[in-house]
Amino acid sequence: MTHRILGIDPGLASTGWGIVDSSGTRHSHVDHGMIVTASKDSPACRLRTLYHELVALMLTFRPEGMGIETLFLTRNTSSAMPVAQARGVILLAAAEHNLIVKEFSPLTIKHSVVGTGGGEKHQVQEMVRLLLGLKEIPKPDHSADALAVAITFLHHGSLWLTASAAH
Amino acid sequence: MTHRILGIDPGLASTGWGIVDSSGTRHSHVDHGMIVTASKDSPACRLRTLYHELVALMLTFRPEGMGIETLFLTRNTSSAMPVAQARGVILLAAAEHNLIVKEFSPLTIKHSVVGTGGGEKHQVQEMVRLLLGLKEIPKPDHSADALAVAITFLHHGSLWLTASAAH
Repeated sequence: MTHRILGIDPGLASTGWGIVDSSGTRHSHVDHGMIVTASKDSPACRLRTLYHELVALMLTFRPEGMGIETLFLTRNTSSAMPVAQARGVILLAAAEHNLIVKEFSPLTIKHSVVGTGGGEKHQVQEMVRLLLGLKEIPKPDHSADALAVAITFLHHGSLWLTASAAH
Repeated sequence: MTHRILGIDPGLASTGWGIVDSSGTRHSHVDHGMIVTASKDSPACRLRTLYHELVALMLTFRPEGMGIETLFLTRNTSSAMPVAQARGVILLAAAEHNLIVKEFSPLTIKHSVVGTGGGEKHQVQEMVRLLLGLKEIPKPDHSADALAVAITFLHHGSLWLTASAAH
């Protein structure tokens, strides 16, 4: 049985997404991209754009789970607020479409993809390329990060027990 | 012509709301209350509850504008994250229903309702009671705060020019 996971690297200006299928022993790349919102629009309008584009992705690809990065808290909290608001809308879209939601810290993602928490950003992206058998690192960076989140979801194999129990 | 405004004091566990009508010279209280979500539910599930209850309010009362408090950033950023995610969902609901959205800082709200930015929380609530001609301060506090935001929206009279231009 194949499982399909949507990975998300959240943001208000740009949200990276990636879809990965897995047979359990082997992952394969399905698609990836970015949802971009216009800075000239109001925050409410940008969140609406993000929501509708994300729902369209969910309806197109029908993933059964969504992995999303937790927010890395820096001292610059004012820049974190728009991302947190975008996360709210992304979590809502997942709940509305009955996706199993798992949140992962950047450290967990690095550990899961590279095998160590100390991996550099480029190392994570190179491992994403290798694990998915791609010729080149997916671009832009946000999409490669989103694919890394999807892979992390798949590597947490015990989650499938939860998933099965929930259905 | 009467204008109807929804005021929001956002939160994940509890979001206060209040509806105020205004003829321009006189405000009147329509209704107020709280949207509460269960802590046993997942964040995504709680955001869905908040969204649906808020949409139900918008469809019932048909406000033309929504005022919402900006997030007061404390050093405890981890507690601000759930509120910011709730704000995202609230802004989305407003955008989906074509409400004019205005965001106000706690300082602006105090200044608008009490006449000075130094007002204590209780002073704001007492002024809400007086301005709306109520016998008692609306309970719970989150609802009184939400009514204060709606009044602030109405006190920013020049906003109606923007509102008219937008229609």
